[in-house]
Amino acid sequence: MYKLFYMPMCAASRAAKIILYEKKIVFDSINEPIWQRRIDFLKINPEGDLPVIIDDQNIKIVGYFSLAYYLDETNVGLNLIGDNALDRLEVRRLCRWLSNKFYKEVMDNIVEERVFKSLKGLGNPSSECLKAGRVNLKNHENYFEWLLKDRTFLAGEFFSLADIVYSAYMSTLDYLSEVSWERIGYTKKWYAKIKSRPSFKDILKEKLFTIPASKHYQDLDF
Amino acid sequence: MYKLFYMPMCAASRAAKIILYEKKIVFDSINEPIWQRRIDFLKINPEGDLPVIIDDQNIKIVGYFSLAYYLDETNVGLNLIGDNALDRLEVRRLCRWLSNKFYKEVMDNIVEERVFKSLKGLGNPSSECLKAGRVNLKNHENYFEWLLKDRTFLAGEFFSLADIVYSAYMSTLDYLSEVSWERIGYTKKWYAKIKSRPSFKDILKEKLFTIPASKHYQDLDF
Repeated sequence: MYKLFYMPMCAASRAAKIILYEKKIVFDSINEPIWQRRIDFLKINPEGDLPVIIDDQNIKIVGYFSLAYYLDETNVGLNLIGDNALDRLEVRRLCRWLSNKFYKEVMDNIVEERVFKSLKGLGNPSSECLKAGRVNLKNHENYFEWLLKDRTFLAGEFFSLADIVYSAYMSTLDYLSEVSWERIGYTKKWYAKIKSRPSFKDILKEKLFTIPASKHYQDLDF
Repeated sequence: MYKLFYMPMCAASRAAKIILYEKKIVFDSINEPIWQRRIDFLKINPEGDLPVIIDDQNIKIVGYFSLAYYLDETNVGLNLIGDNALDRLEVRRLCRWLSNKFYKEVMDNIVEERVFKSLKGLGNPSSECLKAGRVNLKNHENYFEWLLKDRTFLAGEFFSLADIVYSAYMSTLDYLSEVSWERIGYTKKWYAKIKSRPSFKDILKEKLFTIPASKHYQDLDF
């Protein structure tokens, strides 16, 4: 059976979980608090980061992007990368945007501050970071809203890794009540569609003891 | 003809340049000072980041990783990703390490501070960042040295995108005299081999007016 090293509310781990469900792979989820830097985990991934997946042949896969590519290259399940070079180019462009720019400007400022900082014992969120993160979030949301105005899915007319990653990010922000959905109608419609997929079910059950979910977090017809 | 939007001393731009040379693609290099956020450039890449490549069919490609994949998928030139799923997994793992962890912990602290901060008019390098960057650099160098002890190239016995990215990063750090090569003998041997490739020639000619290159920067038998 596959193993997934995972952390609740970690958007990158969520993306890996959705990929595994979409690919219909049975897996065990192992909670790994990475800031403890467990030696046994560092032996598996010296980079010390999540998610890590170990497949049924004991192959280690680091990161959701590599997971989707590896499964695609070995012909496991539904294709999530696009089936021609141009589609794949657009999926990669958006995944790069999300994992670099969006992550640094939004997730690091909001999720890191509100969720992981206190878990790591680093104190209260910085109001300066939160403020910057919220301004950045609006700018990023506007760009993706502009894309979704003319597209069924994020990279075009096909469901792809780009949808998985953006919905994983947005689900974490949504749990924390950081998203004003009424402002971004096309994105709201797109997110309602994605969160109704069976692969999303598990994500919607996640709970933090310290922070309750937003009112509509689990509501599929929000 | 291909166009490459580029910035001198930008390691990611260097990686794209090396890929184009390795693939024997003729290209025009356009200097793009990204901090000016030129509207015409943002229309090409709204993410605002480098490198960007426009191919001979006017297709826009953002980032070195996507460039190598797109050219591979459209069968242009030498394969740089590995020719089986396991090799490709290792190339991706190392590229992820370099573009996430290494970039954030080393390049942001050293190259950003010493080269780009003053160009952006943001003042002098922070000694705290430089100190952190130099400690991190040693740790990363140790990991890659450990890999190169048993491997001809970074991801195994084949020249790949991982070699291109690490050598591009190290070349920028080397220009700035930040690398103690005597400490990392296997890496020095590997780098001498990579920097002798014709694809590296252009990189070694680069000069900053404000900071002279390290003594051995252009020396192929250093």
